[in-house]
Amino acid sequence: MTRPNLVPLGLGPEFDRIREIWRKLGDKGKGGGDDCAIVELGAEKLAVSTDMAVEGTHFRTSWLSPSEIGWRAGAAALSDLAAVAALPLGVLASLGVPEGYPEDSVVELMDGLGSVAQSVGATVLGGDLVRSDRIVVDVVALGQVNHPILRSGASVGDTLWVTGRLGGPVLALNELEAGNEPAPAALLRFTRPEPRISEAQWLGGRGAKALIDLSDGLAADAGHVAAASGVACVIEAARVPLIEDADVNAAMLGGEEYELLAVLPADVPSSTSGDFAREFGLPLTGIGHVEEGAGVRVTNAGVLLKLNGGYRHFES
Amino acid sequence: MTRPNLVPLGLGPEFDRIREIWRKLGDKGKGGGDDCAIVELGAEKLAVSTDMAVEGTHFRTSWLSPSEIGWRAGAAALSDLAAVAALPLGVLASLGVPEGYPEDSVVELMDGLGSVAQSVGATVLGGDLVRSDRIVVDVVALGQVNHPILRSGASVGDTLWVTGRLGGPVLALNELEAGNEPAPAALLRFTRPEPRISEAQWLGGRGAKALIDLSDGLAADAGHVAAASGVACVIEAARVPLIEDADVNAAMLGGEEYELLAVLPADVPSSTSGDFAREFGLPLTGIGHVEEGAGVRVTNAGVLLKLNGGYRHFES
Repeated sequence: MTRPNLVPLGLGPEFDRIREIWRKLGDKGKGGGDDCAIVELGAEKLAVSTDMAVEGTHFRTSWLSPSEIGWRAGAAALSDLAAVAALPLGVLASLGVPEGYPEDSVVELMDGLGSVAQSVGATVLGGDLVRSDRIVVDVVALGQVNHPILRSGASVGDTLWVTGRLGGPVLALNELEAGNEPAPAALLRFTRPEPRISEAQWLGGRGAKALIDLSDGLAADAGHVAAASGVACVIEAARVPLIEDADVNAAMLGGEEYELLAVLPADVPSSTSGDFAREFGLPLTGIGHVEEGAGVRVTNAGVLLKLNGGYRHFES
Repeated sequence: MTRPNLVPLGLGPEFDRIREIWRKLGDKGKGGGDDCAIVELGAEKLAVSTDMAVEGTHFRTSWLSPSEIGWRAGAAALSDLAAVAALPLGVLASLGVPEGYPEDSVVELMDGLGSVAQSVGATVLGGDLVRSDRIVVDVVALGQVNHPILRSGASVGDTLWVTGRLGGPVLALNELEAGNEPAPAALLRFTRPEPRISEAQWLGGRGAKALIDLSDGLAADAGHVAAASGVACVIEAARVPLIEDADVNAAMLGGEEYELLAVLPADVPSSTSGDFAREFGLPLTGIGHVEEGAGVRVTNAGVLLKLNGGYRHFES
């Protein structure tokens, strides 16, 4: 995730910390971006994002193969390009590995990164390789974007939509932490999330006014849209699409989904979900709407719900 | 440092490893770059580099203030832009910090990064903040470059030049490891290296045919130029400019200098060094020439010298 200056993020101590950094940076920092920094170069616009994955914070080596570590780190950075409707140009990776980490594993990890890049038409352009106590993968994704869709475009009356089915990563993570084998569908959402690049283009073509990828969790990310747009997001809990066995509370708070939350106009055609599903083999689900006010409200048949807990990385 | 595909690097197991990664990546990796990846975007060319600094590998917190950690990490990435004669647009930083790392230190670190960016006309565009056992700073530098000066442009008869005075970082590092206080000049070269952005532009204007920044050490980096250009680099040890108390052997092998090695035509005017020194208050020293053959030869009054040891990061 990449944060602009004067960052209109949702509530939370993590976001307070990021706001404070940018405030103190003053004129040494310049935010023009959203999930990505947007850099103008001649007549072109470049979207750039950087995402760091650290062993022990984001994954354990007993949970992910080297190839999956590379895929997942790449997907996280590429998902930030999807979040502004950019088209990927390439990725660079800085890789820290412990002394004695097998050469083959380094190659596998880079191959996993190369595979997710290739899956969205990009390639690995370069990188850095250093020694580190624990595995660290930092991926930079570069994309081209003519008309970035930012978080700030939502207005009262718009509708909220989410791609895919949520809850897989947190379900897989809970099972892995408990020493259990996760269900294959949930595990796949954790090990090989797919950056929704083409889906973002499609949504842009259907008039998406705001867009964000779900990296902090649906509740928090809807909060970022609300803060950036100066509106309130209202989500109907019963409409949030879930994978099998997922709990809606956990799904709302679980991060690193890398699905998209899109804000579409109120008058979006009723065929939209069906068209999307036929195109991508993936649901697009209306989950709520935009109102006057601030923050995120989660309702169940009109009754305001309180979410329990907040998203966290696991602690090693 | 950023490595292109089919990487023509000098000798050494570190470089063998990088070559092997790129070979196995096959068509998932695409190198068009040198110290930087060069990405074409419409009519423009973008130079991108990523550099990771890890506590315990590249620095200790007892040696560098948070601001210096940020400056140094930024300087390393920006130096890669200098190495291809690109003009900086901005930097992004992914930052991993331990639980309980003071908020003020995070701000100071980012301020150090912002300061080195500002010193070369760039700003901090975004970043990522995650938890990590040890401090990890990965900096991405973005630059614009019309005519990148690559490592591959040296030809027989050309002359080799180096900016500044070498040996400071390795001298400082040795003293710090021994628990001594380094001399201020050497310490400053370690804590606040300056990316030679303007110097690279100047050298480009004087017809520089190849360029590299000294990150792996003069001997290794001259080896990269030799390999990429298909020539031999001959360096006269006695002409290598040193800071006070530096040893020429250590200076040839010591990495992370972030000075430039430039290949200029044989007929460069005799006023070149003087002009450069007046412009930048920094020496530009002729240290050798380019011959037919391969690799790097270091001579002393025509006698071939053997360098002892190789560049290493310190081990914590």
